[in-house]
Amino acid sequence: VHLCTGPVFVQGAEPGDVLEIRVIDVLPRPSANPRFRGKAFGSNASAWWGFQYQDLLEEPRPREVVTIYEIDLADDDGIAKAVYNYQWVPQLDPFGTLHPTIDYPGLPVDHSAIKKRFGILNGARIPLRPHFGVLAVAPKEAAIVDSIPPGYFGGNLDNWRIGRGASLYLPIAVPGALFSTGDPHASQGDAEVAGTAIECSMTGLFQLILHKQSSDGPAFLRDLDYPLVDTGEEWVVQGFSYANYLSALGGKAQSEIYNKSSIDLAMRDAFRKIRRLLMTTYDLSEDEAISLISVAVDFGVTQVVDGNWGVHATMKKSIFFHG
Amino acid sequence: VHLCTGPVFVQGAEPGDVLEIRVIDVLPRPSANPRFRGKAFGSNASAWWGFQYQDLLEEPRPREVVTIYEIDLADDDGIAKAVYNYQWVPQLDPFGTLHPTIDYPGLPVDHSAIKKRFGILNGARIPLRPHFGVLAVAPKEAAIVDSIPPGYFGGNLDNWRIGRGASLYLPIAVPGALFSTGDPHASQGDAEVAGTAIECSMTGLFQLILHKQSSDGPAFLRDLDYPLVDTGEEWVVQGFSYANYLSALGGKAQSEIYNKSSIDLAMRDAFRKIRRLLMTTYDLSEDEAISLISVAVDFGVTQVVDGNWGVHATMKKSIFFHG
Repeated sequence: VHLCTGPVFVQGAEPGDVLEIRVIDVLPRPSANPRFRGKAFGSNASAWWGFQYQDLLEEPRPREVVTIYEIDLADDDGIAKAVYNYQWVPQLDPFGTLHPTIDYPGLPVDHSAIKKRFGILNGARIPLRPHFGVLAVAPKEAAIVDSIPPGYFGGNLDNWRIGRGASLYLPIAVPGALFSTGDPHASQGDAEVAGTAIECSMTGLFQLILHKQSSDGPAFLRDLDYPLVDTGEEWVVQGFSYANYLSALGGKAQSEIYNKSSIDLAMRDAFRKIRRLLMTTYDLSEDEAISLISVAVDFGVTQVVDGNWGVHATMKKSIFFHG
Repeated sequence: VHLCTGPVFVQGAEPGDVLEIRVIDVLPRPSANPRFRGKAFGSNASAWWGFQYQDLLEEPRPREVVTIYEIDLADDDGIAKAVYNYQWVPQLDPFGTLHPTIDYPGLPVDHSAIKKRFGILNGARIPLRPHFGVLAVAPKEAAIVDSIPPGYFGGNLDNWRIGRGASLYLPIAVPGALFSTGDPHASQGDAEVAGTAIECSMTGLFQLILHKQSSDGPAFLRDLDYPLVDTGEEWVVQGFSYANYLSALGGKAQSEIYNKSSIDLAMRDAFRKIRRLLMTTYDLSEDEAISLISVAVDFGVTQVVDGNWGVHATMKKSIFFHG
């Protein structure tokens, strides 16, 4: 569930160039309600598109649940705490449409119709991982693109490693790049199992750097055709079930992708991408790259809820940069 | 490729109890060759059972490659460096059998028949993650069990987080538990893509602690039916394509498992296990557990090469233990 801001037209950006998005800062926005001065709030939905929805133990089944989290901005402890949760009940929107499930971001919830359960989560202190779930340029394959499945153009990556200090590199597919961002998360685990993170209003400060196509530039920028992250300490290579689902799945790609995603496919894609990065950037043979991947690269599950499921491959840059 | 030591009969151990294996230390063994005093060596094979074998870019295809790594035991830098690699060529064993592929651990290699490539891997410094890939008790389902696919009894987990200071908890299935260990690794990445880690002769020091079945004991020990790891800082819940492949796949389970593994299945298993751990250990409702998993639990790919593929779920214990 996300709102987006954009697109930003980048002067001089052309297909074949690479857009670097440097994340200068990501800050939770304080609540505007004077009763909650100095606090920020976020919500997590265990939603119908989550991995758990058809696999619940307790009744009623299926069900959706919203959990509200708070962040005390005065404390520098970098944690979020749960305040209360409630089971979703059908909500009537201001236009008279009934919403039996959580199908629209920002739907006002009638607090008299829900049952809040306080004192939940046993005091759990969730470490913050502030980031934007969506960071995208426009793909060239379609005029109107569903913002949920991520792809070569970035999009709904839902990878918390793209936080403060990180750079995301995206291949530019259309003139002006058309950068969009949104889906701010206070924290998220790898996999984003229930369908959402701690969705939280946040202010992002980004620096956009245009890397013109060049045979002289850094090797990792040449022929980049997928979202690549540099956290400063690590390379994070983003794999998907389909590297480019818009071209791979034909005319109905934007609906088909929801039926054809798998972590197995995303693992294959991530393996091929990190192999290529190692061969081009560090001048390794294929055999050297494969050995290094087996002994020093970690594969994790990025998300299993956005249609085009993700696996990322992470490698410490210190393996090659020695002081 | 692994050799194992065991089984160790644990006095008083009965089915339903839990064996805790505390990893006190894991130390690389120095080379006995006086020319290489103070060094330890390990080998990594990109083998026919690896994820890359049918997916190679360069000729000849397919091929197997062995990479030799060294550790300087005098340096306290905790890294391994590549020395040379070579492509596998058929090897004749001392009994006259020809081995066209790497099909047997410890096969002597005729150094005059291989072509060593030195100066490889561009100075890569691989951080050490010393651990034993195999830590097992005996399953009850079969008298002779293939040591390659892991399962509820532990086995070839290939999870590097079970290193020095970690505890592995395994459900005991037969009288005496019958603990075995082996497959020492100097380092490994999550996924173990090429089929092996840096396989290295190592000395392990383990403390075995028997936890008798009890309704008074810690909640996480009750009804434990899978390998659970406590690294001190994190819970690591081990999921598999099949939680118990020996019972799930019938009489031919030990061959069928190689055709039926998937990361998608292992993700489902890991999700169910961490949900249960959170509900029983921290008294969370299902809704609380699911929200926490979505915002604070990381799912990673343990291995895709051992038959019963693994996904592990990792959660920081500090979320609940506050100072």
